[in-house]
Amino acid sequence: MPTTEPQSPNVDLSATLELAMELISRPSVTPDDLDCQELMIERLEQLGFTIELLPFGDVKNFWAIHGHHGPVLAFAGHTDVVPSGPELQWSTPPFEPLIDAEGMLRGRGAADMKGSLAAMVTAVERFVSTHPDHDGRIAFLVTSDEEGPAIDGTRAVVEHLRERHERLDYCVVGEPSSTERLGDVIKNGRRGSLGGILKVRGIQGHVAYPHLARNPIHQIAPALDALATEHWDSGNDSFPATSFQISNIRAGTGATNVIPGEVEATFNFRFSTETSEQQLRERTEAILRAHDLDYDISWTLNGEPFLTREGALVEATMAGVEAITGQRPVLSTSGGTSDGRFIATLGSQVVELGPRNATIHQVNECVRAADLDELSAIYEAILKQLFVAQETR
Amino acid sequence: MPTTEPQSPNVDLSATLELAMELISRPSVTPDDLDCQELMIERLEQLGFTIELLPFGDVKNFWAIHGHHGPVLAFAGHTDVVPSGPELQWSTPPFEPLIDAEGMLRGRGAADMKGSLAAMVTAVERFVSTHPDHDGRIAFLVTSDEEGPAIDGTRAVVEHLRERHERLDYCVVGEPSSTERLGDVIKNGRRGSLGGILKVRGIQGHVAYPHLARNPIHQIAPALDALATEHWDSGNDSFPATSFQISNIRAGTGATNVIPGEVEATFNFRFSTETSEQQLRERTEAILRAHDLDYDISWTLNGEPFLTREGALVEATMAGVEAITGQRPVLSTSGGTSDGRFIATLGSQVVELGPRNATIHQVNECVRAADLDELSAIYEAILKQLFVAQETR
Ligand SMILES: [Zn+2]
Ligand SMILES: [Zn+2]
Repeated sequence: MPTTEPQSPNVDLSATLELAMELISRPSVTPDDLDCQELMIERLEQLGFTIELLPFGDVKNFWAIHGHHGPVLAFAGHTDVVPSGPELQWSTPPFEPLIDAEGMLRGRGAADMKGSLAAMVTAVERFVSTHPDHDGRIAFLVTSDEEGPAIDGTRAVVEHLRERHERLDYCVVGEPSSTERLGDVIKNGRRGSLGGILKVRGIQGHVAYPHLARNPIHQIAPALDALATEHWDSGNDSFPATSFQISNIRAGTGATNVIPGEVEATFNFRFSTETSEQQLRERTEAILRAHDLDYDISWTLNGEPFLTREGALVEATMAGVEAITGQRPVLSTSGGTSDGRFIATLGSQVVELGPRNATIHQVNECVRAADLDELSAIYEAILKQLFVAQETR
Repeated sequence: MPTTEPQSPNVDLSATLELAMELISRPSVTPDDLDCQELMIERLEQLGFTIELLPFGDVKNFWAIHGHHGPVLAFAGHTDVVPSGPELQWSTPPFEPLIDAEGMLRGRGAADMKGSLAAMVTAVERFVSTHPDHDGRIAFLVTSDEEGPAIDGTRAVVEHLRERHERLDYCVVGEPSSTERLGDVIKNGRRGSLGGILKVRGIQGHVAYPHLARNPIHQIAPALDALATEHWDSGNDSFPATSFQISNIRAGTGATNVIPGEVEATFNFRFSTETSEQQLRERTEAILRAHDLDYDISWTLNGEPFLTREGALVEATMAGVEAITGQRPVLSTSGGTSDGRFIATLGSQVVELGPRNATIHQVNECVRAADLDELSAIYEAILKQLFVAQETR
């Protein structure tokens, strides 16, 4: 039996913390789920959700849906967490969740994103109990590989949904979007991410005989400088400017008297809607050709940029946050990628709303315990905004 | 008993090939000597040489001298060889010397430089037998670490000789100096070698938040380009221009979404007498400062440039080569460093003369067998030029 009391949704929110702590106590490092999804599924089944297990490879995913007609709002998230790193650097064991004297819920995944998953489940529990005949349909799209390769996770589930023409109007992703206080920032889009591995070939030789060699490090240096200083675009109202960063470079065997035969550099674009993937590739290669390099590039499109403009979901989310926190959030498209990039390809409106992200992927990950209760109330308020006729809210 | 026949020095040169093959059959990869030196010492003791073992660390060295007065001519060389590399790539086993149908002596060290060592020993055997009362003194300076760190080898022996004010007027180093045919090139000096390890610090971060990071790869690229395209000097009559080469560069953990915190590049100058070590360091750091880098450099002076101008040794060597081959060699200071850089600090005249260097440090190292016999004759001719009064040659 759910422990919620539908009559007073704001009273028994500790159900959220209980579930969050149960989830955190499972060290479900990507791609392991360790039955976190089973925990959620049991709760959703009790509410009458139809569950569909969608494992791909060694990644567990599930899709769950409640209701029979009308627009679909999906809560999306991931049960996997990044590794804890050196456990000795944690002030409390990473997979033994606790709420400390300052009211912080501590543990790996507290902020990214088991806290959000718990808040989603309890929000839906309260909402379905109080509004058994709600408009629309409520869904869950949960994966155990968001922090890893992200190939057999949300991406695969989305392809599956696309093939059978599943409707997905609205999606709330539980990524920790908040910065200074809960709900201050909602992500309504993300930049695109385009990666490249550049190999420049020279001619190996001995440093004492440079005329017999061609040093690929010498050749790549001005080209990398040109790429790093290129003005790709200026962004627009919704997106910051496209940025280029080199993340890795490698050449040489360690021997100090050998001119290497090849240098390899890895780089990444985070790009706005002002420049297409195709344009970035063409402009990059034009710069490389201008530097007369003997090169190969292998490109990986990690995600197209997506943007959810003002509309029903953004309005409902803004109103939901304001109703609970009293403050209106800011829309942002900055930061890293998320599984929102895959879901947006279905034509869905997508927003990301979750707790503060200050400690994610770090030692001593934590979140204000009270924030998770409030987050659950916000999720519930969004459901009300979208799926309850105005007069009966 | 030596197998030479002193009466006809040019007849029984196969003694050189025999000794060369005995030396090659010992896989004396740096710093192992595997009693190669003992083989040489036995032969020199029979000639009346005084032997001094000078081991330092795990490196074997010896100094041997014959004669009691007058200028000293030392033959210098190394018994260590570079590793064979993948033995399967060799057409004959690297440490099983043989003379093939084309008359090539094959095996690791045939050219660099066990062939030269054998030629030196047999040349001295013939010379001492025919000129027991020669002018001057003949010495050997042999190490088992020329191809490795070269710290406990010739460098340490030279310091030892310096401390006791040992005289060393002339030195013939057996490094393979010849290019197209035996004796076409004599090295009468070498460029200096100055190495540096450059670390440039940035601020680590996530590629999605470049404004919170500072990418050291982006920062080093234009600086490396400036260093690689700098005109350091134009060289002079004796030296080619100073050259700069980057041999290694490393940054990044492999993760494609992390801006690294540091980049490390290794570089090397081969420098002429037109620019001093001090000037190279200062000009390098001026370029780095102009690029506003947060950097460290650790410098290693591998050797100052040295030059043996025309004089008794160069004249004797040119004449010796011409007497045996009929062709006059060319003087050169190009190419890598050798132990000549250490010996030259004693104020000695130093030349390098050895077989063709086409296959050194490669698989299937080999040398024309007849070239080693001729090389022995050249070394003997040099001894005659220097240590036999003109009328009695
Ligand atoms: Zn996440
Ligand atoms: Zn050598």
